[in-house]
Amino acid sequence: MNEKLHHVVIVGGGFGGLKAARRLLRAPLKVTLLDRRNFHLFQPLLYQVATGALSPANIAAPLRALFKRQANMEVLLDEVLDVDVSARELILREGRLKYDTLIVAAGARHHYFGNNAWEAFAPGLKSVEDATEIRRRVLLAFENAERETDLQKRRAWLSFVIVGAGATGVELAGALSEIAHHTLRGNFRRIDPGSTEIVLIDSEERVLSPYPPDLSEKAAQALKRMGVTVRLKTKVKEINSRGLVIQTGDTEEFMASHTVLWVAGVTASPLAGAIAKATGAVIDKAGRIAVQPDLSIAGHPEIIAIGDMALFTHQTGKPLPGIAPVAMQQGRYAADLILARLQMQGKTPPPFHYKDRGTMATIGRSSAVVNLGRWRYSGMLAWLTWLFVHLTFLIQFENKFLVLCQWAWNYFTRNRSARLITGSAEAAPGAEKHTK
Amino acid sequence: MNEKLHHVVIVGGGFGGLKAARRLLRAPLKVTLLDRRNFHLFQPLLYQVATGALSPANIAAPLRALFKRQANMEVLLDEVLDVDVSARELILREGRLKYDTLIVAAGARHHYFGNNAWEAFAPGLKSVEDATEIRRRVLLAFENAERETDLQKRRAWLSFVIVGAGATGVELAGALSEIAHHTLRGNFRRIDPGSTEIVLIDSEERVLSPYPPDLSEKAAQALKRMGVTVRLKTKVKEINSRGLVIQTGDTEEFMASHTVLWVAGVTASPLAGAIAKATGAVIDKAGRIAVQPDLSIAGHPEIIAIGDMALFTHQTGKPLPGIAPVAMQQGRYAADLILARLQMQGKTPPPFHYKDRGTMATIGRSSAVVNLGRWRYSGMLAWLTWLFVHLTFLIQFENKFLVLCQWAWNYFTRNRSARLITGSAEAAPGAEKHTK
Repeated sequence: MNEKLHHVVIVGGGFGGLKAARRLLRAPLKVTLLDRRNFHLFQPLLYQVATGALSPANIAAPLRALFKRQANMEVLLDEVLDVDVSARELILREGRLKYDTLIVAAGARHHYFGNNAWEAFAPGLKSVEDATEIRRRVLLAFENAERETDLQKRRAWLSFVIVGAGATGVELAGALSEIAHHTLRGNFRRIDPGSTEIVLIDSEERVLSPYPPDLSEKAAQALKRMGVTVRLKTKVKEINSRGLVIQTGDTEEFMASHTVLWVAGVTASPLAGAIAKATGAVIDKAGRIAVQPDLSIAGHPEIIAIGDMALFTHQTGKPLPGIAPVAMQQGRYAADLILARLQMQGKTPPPFHYKDRGTMATIGRSSAVVNLGRWRYSGMLAWLTWLFVHLTFLIQFENKFLVLCQWAWNYFTRNRSARLITGSAEAAPGAEKHTK
Repeated sequence: MNEKLHHVVIVGGGFGGLKAARRLLRAPLKVTLLDRRNFHLFQPLLYQVATGALSPANIAAPLRALFKRQANMEVLLDEVLDVDVSARELILREGRLKYDTLIVAAGARHHYFGNNAWEAFAPGLKSVEDATEIRRRVLLAFENAERETDLQKRRAWLSFVIVGAGATGVELAGALSEIAHHTLRGNFRRIDPGSTEIVLIDSEERVLSPYPPDLSEKAAQALKRMGVTVRLKTKVKEINSRGLVIQTGDTEEFMASHTVLWVAGVTASPLAGAIAKATGAVIDKAGRIAVQPDLSIAGHPEIIAIGDMALFTHQTGKPLPGIAPVAMQQGRYAADLILARLQMQGKTPPPFHYKDRGTMATIGRSSAVVNLGRWRYSGMLAWLTWLFVHLTFLIQFENKFLVLCQWAWNYFTRNRSARLITGSAEAAPGAEKHTK
């Protein structure tokens, strides 16, 4: 590669980073896409891996394969430890990397609001390993219930609690209900999986709180029909190996459960903090770094932050949500900004403007809610919209094809064949295996 | 379940155990199928998971789902620690289990002939975790080669050595050649994956030594055309983190390689040893337990050993090979033996007789060898036979369907999309990650 070309380094191969890299195709630049993992992960479908409907490879696309024909581009598998803004260098686990423009798109991790000890008892859902770990815990819970003769202890194995009633929480609750009532029907001899208790907890007043109230209500009704107990205005005070303590109003309550899933809070990648420290930029309590109207860091136009890591408040006064469409639009904007800067020196491009094309969440078989602003609908049509949009945005034609095959199969058979307990060296049941 | 029914306990949900359990469908018996894992694994295709062509769930079938309609049958997820033959009880990790007849079908593990330290540097291929670990090492080797600037060190990352030129070794070598020459073409900027060296080592005089010599020769030629170096009459003296020492005749040689795969030897499940100890039965050096002509243990007609664990020499004087058709025929025989004993007290059933319907191994795209005894052929027709037979024997229609979809896709695109580096908590490259 020509060493004199402007070098754009993109950190993170998620929705934002991928879009930025694609947009720089054929530009007279040198582009490096850096990620810790060798694949892009389609996170909106990760809950389907956690519930055995899809395999990890169905929603992952190898980064090198995606960019093999993009000649100005290099993929680097490494991890960023720190950034040296004055030298314009990233400090990697293996060496240093110079940049002319840096796009940081490293996303977010789940976050326990200062209660990191809870992670052992209530895993989050951000990586492939998180998903297979949740799958392992859910399936082992049924196995342990089948072995347990003490009815009270059995009940704790058949109680699943999901903390966080956003889109992922609602989707997980729906999928667990499907598993309990349909997929596992007849699989056991001592327990009835249909007696499983699924509880969805949120501190807000309604499920899917960023959605219009009527859609939240539709989603809550659909969950209720599926046997999910929704507990709103409820906070988690403590999580341990036996269950969790929740508080509704002034009332504290203990719920016995060995399977608590955490989809309540996220915090930006530590890279946001490192850049904030080096540049003096502001970070909010979710760890996101404040960006200018053009997504750059104040005083450092050569650093651009996008996606879940970026705190962008210039449009409505409120931060943009951490969802794929925001990251993708920001990724495209970041690429266009770089191209504009190189072509028309001096001119200031218009600020980033997020165009909200709508949001949607699925609850279960033939059940979803779609909010397109003017149009809002739920039920079968919403579910088909959800399927169509997710298939469209899945990376790689092969993944679309295999996911469609598997969904069709799952729909007609109510099966979820990726029900493998894997991970620990030699998987065997038992409560002692429950906490790693 | 009726506690007075004859209780058959089957240990192991592989080919033999599954066949026995299926054969006992609707019999007036109580059947318990016990396995450490919650799924049956189609091991003949495990090398395709190790090389990114298939996902683990494609070749696994949840045991509970397979038997949910078999009312006389229970699936138990547990591990056998020992057997109490006088009390007719298995000692499990969680409690004890009484049996009237015991079918042991716990299979085999890879074996390093007393050099267990080699396992860290040369993983075997028997479980889903083995397969994803091999996949991780192979993909990371290319990543490390791309990062390495020292040419000699880079060469060691681009050298793959497979020990054992049986069917699995030949299949792995072919798949690695496909990855190096086609799948990863254009994926890297500094290395040419096509320059990868793939070496297949065996102490025998030819590859696929149990096959007729002309098919071994065809396979060797096909491997050569695919760029695989075959080293015969060659023994492994030492394996460490830098590579391996091999000996051909009197000449010792060091080969630098960070990716050594071990498919050379297997040893029966430790359960064979435990039963031999309790019953006085003979075990051979591969850990297999000697069985009578009716597959039972001498002096213990109520214990039947089948599949890779059993040493059956009554037919030809030589032990039957550890392959799926043997296990399946023995599983069926074991079930029939139990039914015969219950129905016609006193009569002795004819001894087990293995009917060899043929063996086959695939080498790569459109290349395989098939030995049906009278008919022997290789090339495209052999490859189509191999595909057809493997699809036919894959458990569950869904797996057949999804594997066929994926194979068709892989054939036309030469892609292998399950190229995920997963497993270690946060996968990042580096030689220090190579040895866990």
